[in-house]
Amino acid sequence: MPEHAQPIVTVDVVILSLQDGALNVALVRRDHEPHAGDWSLPGGWVHADQDADALAAAYRILAAKAGLDSPYLEQLKTFANRHRDARGWSVSIAHYALVPMTQAAAPQVKWRPVDDIGSLPFDHAEILRTAVERVRSKTAYSSLPVHLMPPTFTLTELQRVYEQVLGMALDKRTFRRRIEELNLVEPAAAARDAAAAHRPAQRYRVKRRFGKELAMSDRNLV
Amino acid sequence: MPEHAQPIVTVDVVILSLQDGALNVALVRRDHEPHAGDWSLPGGWVHADQDADALAAAYRILAAKAGLDSPYLEQLKTFANRHRDARGWSVSIAHYALVPMTQAAAPQVKWRPVDDIGSLPFDHAEILRTAVERVRSKTAYSSLPVHLMPPTFTLTELQRVYEQVLGMALDKRTFRRRIEELNLVEPAAAARDAAAAHRPAQRYRVKRRFGKELAMSDRNLV
Repeated sequence: MPEHAQPIVTVDVVILSLQDGALNVALVRRDHEPHAGDWSLPGGWVHADQDADALAAAYRILAAKAGLDSPYLEQLKTFANRHRDARGWSVSIAHYALVPMTQAAAPQVKWRPVDDIGSLPFDHAEILRTAVERVRSKTAYSSLPVHLMPPTFTLTELQRVYEQVLGMALDKRTFRRRIEELNLVEPAAAARDAAAAHRPAQRYRVKRRFGKELAMSDRNLV
Repeated sequence: MPEHAQPIVTVDVVILSLQDGALNVALVRRDHEPHAGDWSLPGGWVHADQDADALAAAYRILAAKAGLDSPYLEQLKTFANRHRDARGWSVSIAHYALVPMTQAAAPQVKWRPVDDIGSLPFDHAEILRTAVERVRSKTAYSSLPVHLMPPTFTLTELQRVYEQVLGMALDKRTFRRRIEELNLVEPAAAARDAAAAHRPAQRYRVKRRFGKELAMSDRNLV
């Protein structure tokens, strides 16, 4: 069929979460050459006989290499050129995933702060940078960070997560007005703590219809 | 090397322009199977021996199949699955290009309004729909449509282009305020028409630094 040598096709996944108040990325140790033993983004070949599409390949890699089941996952960008992999012209259909702080990952995963990552094999540093830019830019005008939240949370906790993703402080009144405009959360019935001296802060959960899609603001949230 | 059959890797380009006041897409006639003779998006295999990266492949395809030299060109999204091409698991690294109304395309190109396209081979209708959504969404808060403009234009002409891309009328005062906030255009010295009875409307050009990158607004322009 093709008269030209066909490129290598892989899928890499940037898995992001919040750890110790900062945006972190999940790294795994490569178990074969090239770069065997190095910490890298989880990734692998497309298995044409097994994966229905690129997204299915990304979910397979998430489960197999990071022990994560069904986090928020989206295509990021494709990195495709002749110099990114010494084995030849190579395509990485890169994806990014967001994982709540409370969700466990496989023990072989190492979390590292995205702003202090050192070097990574291949062009994984560039892929990571692109993912962080995308997430920060989407955070400024959408509900994206709710995928980093536990099932219920206070509005103060939600603001803290936005601030940790963006790496900057937000004005509380503006933030609450924008969240209200997004029509994103609803009160969660809380288990009352009868012994509590004060009424605890109202807890919220994300409305069901935003489970997999984003609420978008027509204004910057910050 | 790979233990799995490798996918086919292609690049397709959605070329958009304004014709007769509406957003149009450039179609070319396929010269080989599958779908020989059908009108489709211009595209082709990655030539691993020739293309440095996916963007270079897209520029090569633009020149060879549509006779276009260096329009605004950007990666759109990658369509990668086992059912889009009967020949097997297939990857299309899709791009989109914007072309000024005044720029000529090769005679073998046919322009069709994006909202009245009928059917296209492979998943080209889905790729086109994704490109139109992306362009309309970026138009709402950036300078993207300036790549559809001739070298100089009046503010009324610029507003008309935004309206034609979005398919909706805009408020003139809000539009001009947003364009001013973007700090996007500067007056162009006009060739005066001594015979003109009225002073002609001021013509503008895009500031040089926005030639290849976008000015972004933190507010919706519409």
